[in-house]
Amino acid sequence: MIVVMSTNASTQDISEVIARIRSMGYDVHLSEGKERTIIGVIGRGRPIDREQLGLMSGVQNVMPVSHPYKIASREFHPDDTLIPLNGIKVGSPDLAIIAGPCAVENRTQIIEMAHAVREAGATALRGGAFKPRTSPYSFQGLGEEGLRYLAEAREETGLPVVTEVMDPQLVPMFCDYADVFQIGARNMQNYALLHAVGESQFPVLLKRGMSSTIEELLMAAEYILSHGNMRVMLCERGIRTFETFTRNTFDINAIPVLKQASHLPVIADPSHAVGKWEYVESISLAAIAAGADGLILEVHADPEHAESDGRQSLKPERFAALVEKIRRLAPAVGRQVETPVLAR
Amino acid sequence: MIVVMSTNASTQDISEVIARIRSMGYDVHLSEGKERTIIGVIGRGRPIDREQLGLMSGVQNVMPVSHPYKIASREFHPDDTLIPLNGIKVGSPDLAIIAGPCAVENRTQIIEMAHAVREAGATALRGGAFKPRTSPYSFQGLGEEGLRYLAEAREETGLPVVTEVMDPQLVPMFCDYADVFQIGARNMQNYALLHAVGESQFPVLLKRGMSSTIEELLMAAEYILSHGNMRVMLCERGIRTFETFTRNTFDINAIPVLKQASHLPVIADPSHAVGKWEYVESISLAAIAAGADGLILEVHADPEHAESDGRQSLKPERFAALVEKIRRLAPAVGRQVETPVLAR
Amino acid sequence: MIVVMSTNASTQDISEVIARIRSMGYDVHLSEGKERTIIGVIGRGRPIDREQLGLMSGVQNVMPVSHPYKIASREFHPDDTLIPLNGIKVGSPDLAIIAGPCAVENRTQIIEMAHAVREAGATALRGGAFKPRTSPYSFQGLGEEGLRYLAEAREETGLPVVTEVMDPQLVPMFCDYADVFQIGARNMQNYALLHAVGESQFPVLLKRGMSSTIEELLMAAEYILSHGNMRVMLCERGIRTFETFTRNTFDINAIPVLKQASHLPVIADPSHAVGKWEYVESISLAAIAAGADGLILEVHADPEHAESDGRQSLKPERFAALVEKIRRLAPAVGRQVETPVLAR
Amino acid sequence: MIVVMSTNASTQDISEVIARIRSMGYDVHLSEGKERTIIGVIGRGRPIDREQLGLMSGVQNVMPVSHPYKIASREFHPDDTLIPLNGIKVGSPDLAIIAGPCAVENRTQIIEMAHAVREAGATALRGGAFKPRTSPYSFQGLGEEGLRYLAEAREETGLPVVTEVMDPQLVPMFCDYADVFQIGARNMQNYALLHAVGESQFPVLLKRGMSSTIEELLMAAEYILSHGNMRVMLCERGIRTFETFTRNTFDINAIPVLKQASHLPVIADPSHAVGKWEYVESISLAAIAAGADGLILEVHADPEHAESDGRQSLKPERFAALVEKIRRLAPAVGRQVETPVLAR
Repeated sequence: MIVVMSTNASTQDISEVIARIRSMGYDVHLSEGKERTIIGVIGRGRPIDREQLGLMSGVQNVMPVSHPYKIASREFHPDDTLIPLNGIKVGSPDLAIIAGPCAVENRTQIIEMAHAVREAGATALRGGAFKPRTSPYSFQGLGEEGLRYLAEAREETGLPVVTEVMDPQLVPMFCDYADVFQIGARNMQNYALLHAVGESQFPVLLKRGMSSTIEELLMAAEYILSHGNMRVMLCERGIRTFETFTRNTFDINAIPVLKQASHLPVIADPSHAVGKWEYVESISLAAIAAGADGLILEVHADPEHAESDGRQSLKPERFAALVEKIRRLAPAVGRQVETPVLAR
Repeated sequence: MIVVMSTNASTQDISEVIARIRSMGYDVHLSEGKERTIIGVIGRGRPIDREQLGLMSGVQNVMPVSHPYKIASREFHPDDTLIPLNGIKVGSPDLAIIAGPCAVENRTQIIEMAHAVREAGATALRGGAFKPRTSPYSFQGLGEEGLRYLAEAREETGLPVVTEVMDPQLVPMFCDYADVFQIGARNMQNYALLHAVGESQFPVLLKRGMSSTIEELLMAAEYILSHGNMRVMLCERGIRTFETFTRNTFDINAIPVLKQASHLPVIADPSHAVGKWEYVESISLAAIAAGADGLILEVHADPEHAESDGRQSLKPERFAALVEKIRRLAPAVGRQVETPVLAR
Repeated sequence: MIVVMSTNASTQDISEVIARIRSMGYDVHLSEGKERTIIGVIGRGRPIDREQLGLMSGVQNVMPVSHPYKIASREFHPDDTLIPLNGIKVGSPDLAIIAGPCAVENRTQIIEMAHAVREAGATALRGGAFKPRTSPYSFQGLGEEGLRYLAEAREETGLPVVTEVMDPQLVPMFCDYADVFQIGARNMQNYALLHAVGESQFPVLLKRGMSSTIEELLMAAEYILSHGNMRVMLCERGIRTFETFTRNTFDINAIPVLKQASHLPVIADPSHAVGKWEYVESISLAAIAAGADGLILEVHADPEHAESDGRQSLKPERFAALVEKIRRLAPAVGRQVETPVLAR
Repeated sequence: MIVVMSTNASTQDISEVIARIRSMGYDVHLSEGKERTIIGVIGRGRPIDREQLGLMSGVQNVMPVSHPYKIASREFHPDDTLIPLNGIKVGSPDLAIIAGPCAVENRTQIIEMAHAVREAGATALRGGAFKPRTSPYSFQGLGEEGLRYLAEAREETGLPVVTEVMDPQLVPMFCDYADVFQIGARNMQNYALLHAVGESQFPVLLKRGMSSTIEELLMAAEYILSHGNMRVMLCERGIRTFETFTRNTFDINAIPVLKQASHLPVIADPSHAVGKWEYVESISLAAIAAGADGLILEVHADPEHAESDGRQSLKPERFAALVEKIRRLAPAVGRQVETPVLAR
């Protein structure tokens, strides 16, 4: 950390800042220029609050020299973290393809869809039993009944289940049905929930909040990781911008940035990122080309009658065609789509 | 709702859309132009999903003609909702001034601060016992101990307590200590939490999410209101934009817009909206001039040593000076700062 | 400037950075910590490109310690710059009120409107003769004919004319008709135009670009100021955000920030900032309460038939009522609305 | 266009709206529901201003049913527009690769760089002679001298020259040196400039403004197209968002959206879109996978000493490696990188 004193800071101001820094267990290194003094904070002491220092008399600015995430960083863990999922390792050259409907609507639907996405090459099944909806008047999901149908679909197809949990009180119940906890964009900074899924030791798919920075995403991951749960997949699902033609703006820059900054796998969610099914293929291919470790895609047999997100859902045949295109493109960036080794 | 058919929609496309609309219990009104057909949806049937209709063959666009919030709207409740708080009614010409530290740090601090803000003219005391922090390594609040100190501060000063709840499991515990539940910006769409505070029937201060639209804020309020809990105060606290000089961008436009669209009181949070104490006074005066029903402000005796948000906290004497300025400005917009009738 | 070396920078990396800095005419101050070395750049040499330094081997980050604008800054010119306009000084306690239609539509309209806004208390007349329109098929303004009508309106009322120039080739022609050059938001970084109006030595009303930072606005001002033209008024007119309910998001934070960072007067444009006439009054009052030195407002006798921006134009009687409200509110923030001393 | 009347509109309100619409040369189609009346505007009359109609008594909302761009739209021109450039056709399966330094710094630099990028497979040479810089104190380019060096580089290598013009007065001079006019992001809505390049009949590379919507980009193209100049290439170069880790946020969604909405070729600018050279490769591959017709890339032999944009410039060997990767990836999306047929 570096403390930049203002040009008119007094000698006493400087002494007091130095005393404060030393009281926290650090050394200081003074750089006294003609115009201003700059104080480097050296060593390892108790956490210092930049804001506090910034308020001391004579201080112009306090600048960090390192990032605030630790366990999530490449420095902490230089090798890629690999997370087993249905016979592949997410983070390896094998691409993960998680697919299924936005919401579980009934038993038949989810089981049929599980078969359809498995045949097309999916690695895991997605489907929501508890749905976060902007309106209290929209379909809120089937609840535990939906979780039971998901578990049945896994029994039938061998596909592990990725499903969203929104309430920390329900984490124990989800443990009976789910294979991967999805944390939705609205809940990326729901710390009670992050603690609960951290404690669960289940794999987590953590979606970036719609207006969260890349650094905040890594800090949210840090909440889970700090419980010793290292199986966190980061998910870029589009951010909110002024552009209204698409539902969100897919921040494709985040993919190489996250891969460089962190060892955690990065999954892209083109369905939410663009919000209209006709563009999902282009964005999916782009995400893989940019270095994503996998995709999560909304697939629905009858989007016109979907309870939610029909606008962005692929029909199964389009999904199958997309998987074929990914299969062709993947080798150009050193990746491949494995035919999953099914659990049964 | 209006369904705009594309210029090349077939007669069959049109028939099928009409059939679908009728199957939901609505009438249709056809407008057949030279270029395209437009279908009006008339009457009151089951909820129609715009996205579903939009996916039908031949449909170009589906446009709503009304807003999605109901109980929160002025149409539903034309008169201002007034929420009693320490002898005033929030939403009336009496301005509410909620003040106190970001976090409860210890017993002495919160009690001294309660006295200080009461003397300066505050209506209620704010203070966080459970703190949502971006980093798991930052101070997370004193927990229930903090709530107890807040209750003691209320005993001593008569100021009602406004404090943030983040975990639906803790709502019952908060009911023992708090007077108003604050829902933080990160939790505006934490639906499990909105349900829990809706059920509690306690007054709620609902902060706008940092990238939530005005409509989404009203929809979040709708979640609480739909539990029959009508005592919701909306809080504009700044949105996230590209501008980095200030912590957030205070959306002052939201104040007159919310006052027109809804009957609920609107509180401004200049401390978070601008993020630097030296600008808080200007933004506070602006919020009142724009029509806000009150302010929530961070006040700390020693911002340099504050556990959080010191950068944006006013010292008690500056807070008192600000209340005086508000007192002078308020009559120009038909408002006043009451000397609160204290409970003891 | 501070150069932060990465933890694994070699001794040679450090030597080369130091040599580069010295070759530009600066001294360096070394701070060698256990983890990393930090190099302070001291003195006054040739301009250093932060990006270049940042690319040198072993460099982690290069951080500025001062802002890039000079003539626009308070440090350069501690006192408020006062710009004479129709008998008042913009930047003094006297508030400037610039009002008139978005576009000059015909001779009668602009002359009638000039009379109307003068009677209500306006300081200057606004009106566009050349209009920047998103669509090439929209009304583009009357051109030089419009400028002639504006000059006639000035003759009749004594109100100075504020009008937008978009093409550097037309600056000389505008000098024959206008009193203040308006640079529109779309042209804030049109450097050919900034040079031309800088050279003209006419007063300039410089609007912030719709996605420009506060710093970029000050840098755009710097282009004009660096031609020795010190009569620049900064104009906050709303920025582009994700919120779509209003046309733009008025960045009210920018008002106190600009007043602190710069000596130049700050004018608010509530009409564009909110985009709907029914909210213009609230935003105008807020801007004054926040410290703006004046307002620029769209006023039209018949908004329903306005060639542009009717949605956000006040009728003359509403404008007059607003000026009265400002007159009442202004003293609470140490300002006043002068009855202009008319030129004739 | 559809006019939605409010629920409490009077019969007279409705009559007046109908009369106004008819006076513009349109028919109307009435849809009278129980709650409200909706008026469809039918046929082809004089342009109607939505805002004007929206201000009439009793009108709640006016909604367009079609987009405002015409010549730029796929409806107007269903086939892809192909623009010849150095032996390929931009918009065909042959990918265009435009490469070179941000700024022309001297004669040797640009000629050497032209040879380097040609050898690596570039289709055209980029390089700025007039530079738009945020600060008036930054290097502003060599001016006409720079244009002469660019023309020399073309002589030597056969690569056509793409260079930015900022001032409409300089368009005739540029015609002597340039092959393609680049309109920079800051000037996307500089209408005087758009008119001038439209008139020139030279090919134009039109960059999206940093906070312009996709629709506004198409409307800016419309300004050029409406002069009969059909050789416009649209360029996505990143938009401004809250994310600060990267220079801009590359809006990859815009690529498939533009390709569907318009017949014009789409070029991606990964250098500006991400702003750090280490991510340029990932973003380049992603852009091609998403359907871009080409790339414009900053390449510099010595980025550490570049006069501008060194942070995002590839060294020639990295550029050559990237072209190889594109060559391998392109066939998976039906594209190819031609070895350009050189003019000499």
